[in-house]
Amino acid sequence: MHFVTMEIQGERIIGLTDEAQNYVLDLHRAHREIEDGTTWPSSLLEAIEQGESFIETVSRLRDWVFKQRDSESYFYPMGEVRLYAPIPRPKKNIFCVGKNYRDHVLEMGSEDDLPEHIMIFTKATTSVVGPEASIPSHEDLTDQLDYEGELAIVIGKSGKGITIEAAMDHVFGYTIVNDITARDMQKRHKQFFLGKSLDGTCPMGPAIVHRSFVENPQSLMVETKVNGEIRQRASTELMMFSIPEIIAIISKGMTLEPGDIIATGTPAGVGKGFVPPRFLKKGDVVEVSVEKIGTLRNVID
Amino acid sequence: MHFVTMEIQGERIIGLTDEAQNYVLDLHRAHREIEDGTTWPSSLLEAIEQGESFIETVSRLRDWVFKQRDSESYFYPMGEVRLYAPIPRPKKNIFCVGKNYRDHVLEMGSEDDLPEHIMIFTKATTSVVGPEASIPSHEDLTDQLDYEGELAIVIGKSGKGITIEAAMDHVFGYTIVNDITARDMQKRHKQFFLGKSLDGTCPMGPAIVHRSFVENPQSLMVETKVNGEIRQRASTELMMFSIPEIIAIISKGMTLEPGDIIATGTPAGVGKGFVPPRFLKKGDVVEVSVEKIGTLRNVID
Repeated sequence: MHFVTMEIQGERIIGLTDEAQNYVLDLHRAHREIEDGTTWPSSLLEAIEQGESFIETVSRLRDWVFKQRDSESYFYPMGEVRLYAPIPRPKKNIFCVGKNYRDHVLEMGSEDDLPEHIMIFTKATTSVVGPEASIPSHEDLTDQLDYEGELAIVIGKSGKGITIEAAMDHVFGYTIVNDITARDMQKRHKQFFLGKSLDGTCPMGPAIVHRSFVENPQSLMVETKVNGEIRQRASTELMMFSIPEIIAIISKGMTLEPGDIIATGTPAGVGKGFVPPRFLKKGDVVEVSVEKIGTLRNVID
Repeated sequence: MHFVTMEIQGERIIGLTDEAQNYVLDLHRAHREIEDGTTWPSSLLEAIEQGESFIETVSRLRDWVFKQRDSESYFYPMGEVRLYAPIPRPKKNIFCVGKNYRDHVLEMGSEDDLPEHIMIFTKATTSVVGPEASIPSHEDLTDQLDYEGELAIVIGKSGKGITIEAAMDHVFGYTIVNDITARDMQKRHKQFFLGKSLDGTCPMGPAIVHRSFVENPQSLMVETKVNGEIRQRASTELMMFSIPEIIAIISKGMTLEPGDIIATGTPAGVGKGFVPPRFLKKGDVVEVSVEKIGTLRNVID
């Protein structure tokens, strides 16, 4: 199950698509027509808060649609709908794991920078934009705008002190985040937040994929292309802190909540890692693909 | 005008008090009774989003109450109401300025640590608690829990690229934040977020004071007591980055929004600054007072 947030006829609703992402199912209409008395969530965030019952409802709706004579009328070609970030306005800042791939740490510095303990920073909620949205170049503030393709976890179930063993039960699903970073600001202000939170620098999507569809999130290929050229390409098996570890460490003393988004870190190949560095410039097309999730495409404007 | 978020008869509403904070006015009831057709905000956050029109309505309501024969019945003794943080659940993480008082930087390190550029980190929304709420000691995670009394800015008007000259027009008012910090975690994880975001470690309040009441926010005395003993005492005039500068720098490339909370940094006298360090322990009473704003009191549990 691949969930998207889309606009149809001026309304922002939840859509269901599949790995190919050619068509999207209007779940909202299906729910209206079966009239089962339940309340349909007004956003994907609200759906995630409903938990497993939402997934059961979606299965039922999908089965019902396929039995209708006019089942085709429930589907829109993906090209005809406008997509937003799956959660356009998260309830708190996006959590991000820093330095989680060994080769990325080395390209940015040296062995000395390998983290003994996890490093977590955040991106402001105002930085979130959707697939195909333009990313402002912020030329007046930075000449070192960089990409970071990442697998992101979407929390489904609230919890504190979550054990490594129980961690995966707290995952609703996965999406893609491009953790766009102004490297000069990141360095200058020491704490990463300012250089990571410029408006439009957290493209997210295209879909949130339910965990039932991803057997092993620790073996997905993450790939970032700039203008068609592969810059990053690595498997999530290379993470130094695994998904269950990330969840366990963050939640030790802090409650994680449904809809929380955790970007799991970026592999080697960022612009700053090249000699000379290859930062983003106006007109560049950046595509982050994660196996089983999809491709998040944005243009620098 | 001192605004609080309080619970009366099971309902969480906006209350109005004054500097003495002995009585609180039930604005909600007053609004219901004058029946002027306007919608009353369901929270202080919503009120702040209404902007200046809210302040005008409050002035009108207050004047109306004082003209009533039974005006006293609109007031509750402060001791009889339960206070929450003025904004119990901010829409994004709390912004915090690090190292903004010279003497605090020196007690934590040396001249070399004086920031050339502003340092901003965040505290998770889940860390917010109100006045009188207990702060969990998190003994299983830290033995270096520390206090940081701070003046906090509450943004009133949305803006990006706000100039230093225009910055104060974007302020709704001021409150107090105690930026409780697990020093060992802050150090271990390098980026401050984890050590600053344990549940219950962002006491806030008791009130948000409208800017019209604070002629010069850059000359307020900030004082922190632990079990009655003064630990921190300094004027906000000692900030290295002033309030207009903080707003201008943060908003350079990031949109600030109504209800955003920015803690402006802590003066010297934190527990870690003592030799030997004097960290917080169960049962400690921490009181942060800021002139014209009030006193935020919490107990470590």
